[in-house]
Amino acid sequence: MNEWALTKLSYGVYIVTTWADGGKPTGCTANSAMQVTAVPPTIAVSINHDNFTNECIKKTGQFAISILGENSKPITIGTFGFRSGRDFDKFSAQPPIKNYLPIIDDAVAYVTCKVINSMESDTHTVFLAEVTDCDILSEDNPMTYAYYHKVIKGKAPKTAPTYIESK
Amino acid sequence: MNEWALTKLSYGVYIVTTWADGGKPTGCTANSAMQVTAVPPTIAVSINHDNFTNECIKKTGQFAISILGENSKPITIGTFGFRSGRDFDKFSAQPPIKNYLPIIDDAVAYVTCKVINSMESDTHTVFLAEVTDCDILSEDNPMTYAYYHKVIKGKAPKTAPTYIESK
Repeated sequence: MNEWALTKLSYGVYIVTTWADGGKPTGCTANSAMQVTAVPPTIAVSINHDNFTNECIKKTGQFAISILGENSKPITIGTFGFRSGRDFDKFSAQPPIKNYLPIIDDAVAYVTCKVINSMESDTHTVFLAEVTDCDILSEDNPMTYAYYHKVIKGKAPKTAPTYIESK
Repeated sequence: MNEWALTKLSYGVYIVTTWADGGKPTGCTANSAMQVTAVPPTIAVSINHDNFTNECIKKTGQFAISILGENSKPITIGTFGFRSGRDFDKFSAQPPIKNYLPIIDDAVAYVTCKVINSMESDTHTVFLAEVTDCDILSEDNPMTYAYYHKVIKGKAPKTAPTYIESK
C-alpha cells in the first residue's frame, strides 16, 4: 500500500466552528467535509476525537463550516489547526461574524448545520448534518487543500484524517 | 438559504467501481469522497440509491475509487455519470486495469476499500470503508470538481449530492 495515493484526493480548507460552554465560540481546521445529499442538503464532516470541537458539537448538536478562500488569512489555518480551544480562545484576534453560529470573518462562504446522525471510528467522528443555512460571503476562489500545501506550504496537524507521518 | 454557497466546497472527480453479478465491472462518477481517519486509513463516499453501483457495493462489500486527473479522458466522466450500469457496459470502450477491483486505465491513483459501516439518508448511502490497498498511477494533477466545471464545462447528473436544479 502506497499511502501517498490518498493525497491525490481533493479537498477544500475549512474551519468547523460551534459554541463551547458559556457561549464561547470555538472551532478547528478541517479538510474532510463533503455534501452527501442534495435534497435536503446534508453534509458529512470528520472531526478527531481529541479536538475540543468534537465534544462541543456533540453537546450543541450544531456546527458551522467556514469555507476559506485563497486570500483568507493563512494564520487562521494555523490558529485553528494547531492550538486547542480547551485552553486558548482561537477567536481572540479575529472575532467571528455572528450568524447564529460563529463564522470566520474572511471566509468565502459559510454553511450552518444541524447534526442528524453520526458514525464513530477509532479516532474520528463522522457527523452527518442537515444544512440549516448557507451563503456566499466573497467571490475569492475557495482554497483547495492542494493550494494550501503548494502555495502556502502548509502542513497537516497529527489529528487530521489526512495526516501521514514523515519517514 | 443560498444553496450556491455549497458549490464553494472543494472536491475531486472520482469513478467508484465494484463488481456486478457475474463478475462484471461496473461503477459511477462521484465527487463526494473523503478520507475520514489516518490510522487505519478509512474513506467515506456518498452514492445515490438510484445508482446501480450502490446495490452492487452493498452486495460485494467492497469498492475502488479511481482518482481522475486533468488529462484523464473527459468521456469517462460522462459514461460513468450519465448512463446506468444496469443496462450498459460502461467498461466496454475502456477495459479496466484489474487489480482485484476494476480500476480506470488513465486514473492518477486508485484506492481499494472494504465497507465497514454505512449511514442512510433519504437519497444517498454514505459508505465508511477501510482502505485495503492504494497506489499512484501517474504524476498528472488530480482533477478538481472546479476544474471539471470551469475547464471541461462539465455538468452534474441529477443523482449527484451536489446537484442544484437550474431555476
